[in-house]
Amino acid sequence: MKNFNRLIAAFRRLPGVGPKQAERLALHLLRVSSHEVEEFATSVKEAKLSVKPCTVCLNFTEQGVCSICGDPGRDHEILCVVEEPPDVQAIERSGSYQGLYHVLHGSLSPLDGIGPDSLRIRELMGRLKNSKQPVREVILATDPDTEGEATALYLTQMLRPLGIRITRIAQGVPLGGDLDYTDELTLSHALTGRREV
Amino acid sequence: MKNFNRLIAAFRRLPGVGPKQAERLALHLLRVSSHEVEEFATSVKEAKLSVKPCTVCLNFTEQGVCSICGDPGRDHEILCVVEEPPDVQAIERSGSYQGLYHVLHGSLSPLDGIGPDSLRIRELMGRLKNSKQPVREVILATDPDTEGEATALYLTQMLRPLGIRITRIAQGVPLGGDLDYTDELTLSHALTGRREV
Repeated sequence: MKNFNRLIAAFRRLPGVGPKQAERLALHLLRVSSHEVEEFATSVKEAKLSVKPCTVCLNFTEQGVCSICGDPGRDHEILCVVEEPPDVQAIERSGSYQGLYHVLHGSLSPLDGIGPDSLRIRELMGRLKNSKQPVREVILATDPDTEGEATALYLTQMLRPLGIRITRIAQGVPLGGDLDYTDELTLSHALTGRREV
Repeated sequence: MKNFNRLIAAFRRLPGVGPKQAERLALHLLRVSSHEVEEFATSVKEAKLSVKPCTVCLNFTEQGVCSICGDPGRDHEILCVVEEPPDVQAIERSGSYQGLYHVLHGSLSPLDGIGPDSLRIRELMGRLKNSKQPVREVILATDPDTEGEATALYLTQMLRPLGIRITRIAQGVPLGGDLDYTDELTLSHALTGRREV
């Protein structure tokens, strides 16, 4: 059972996978076809080999510069700052943004030892100061949670001296939501951020 | 992003892994060292190659016959029937059982299309009928949930004609538990199954 227990241990090292789930995942892989297991192991290794951060925005890509940064049809004067690569995919799916991105690869969380130096903030400052085409707006699209808010606040202080317009994505009641089931903080943000109609 | 999305898809095919967790696992693997990723992929492939069901009890093993079935010091006249290989490890850890096992590799769940033919019941019947050393007791140690109970009931009906002693593991209040927080069904089983002191 050495290799079986080693497989369970390998799954346990993944974030958020507990002992029960690691066991279930290992059992699953021992039961499906060898072909399927081979394919799983290959996806893992190939992604690791081919996917690298874009040299401009640090989003994951399989080219040197990602397809968004390399697209001349997009607005190179607006940067949207997000925490993780999947956030870029989520905003792209919304179809309502035509500028570029900057991926921080995390958010400030002092209790977990994640300070400003752990995030890709230096690269963001470099882009804003050295870009050929001056950036006219930075949209802070970090998550609307404690860490995301702290990160947005920190970035605001860092960016203010550059004299660039800084905006934060709107916070309020989500579409399709129910006021009755909305938490107090969201409702308070929705009221404070109310707009003329 | 093709290989990144393919990695997310590979994780999503695992049981109980949702879209958010698949994303987190994929991001994690892209961030740790190549060495660690290589090791993960190797554990998966090696376990699949080397771990097979024991030819006697169907528990996972890296030999033809597992170390439990091959141990002449154990009581070969008692079989403990469990649902999954980790159940064997759990009972072994308790240190209070010296007989052999039989792993069903599942439990009856008609709603999920898992009938008696999907479990290794035929192999159990074969063992009981053809074993050199006659089996004097079968302990039904399937889980104490609906599927496990249904499986135990079905096995009881199948085994009854063989005239072998059939027992079911005791159900009651778990050690270290609090009566106040114990569900009604468990309490009812604990009362019905009460023993003289």
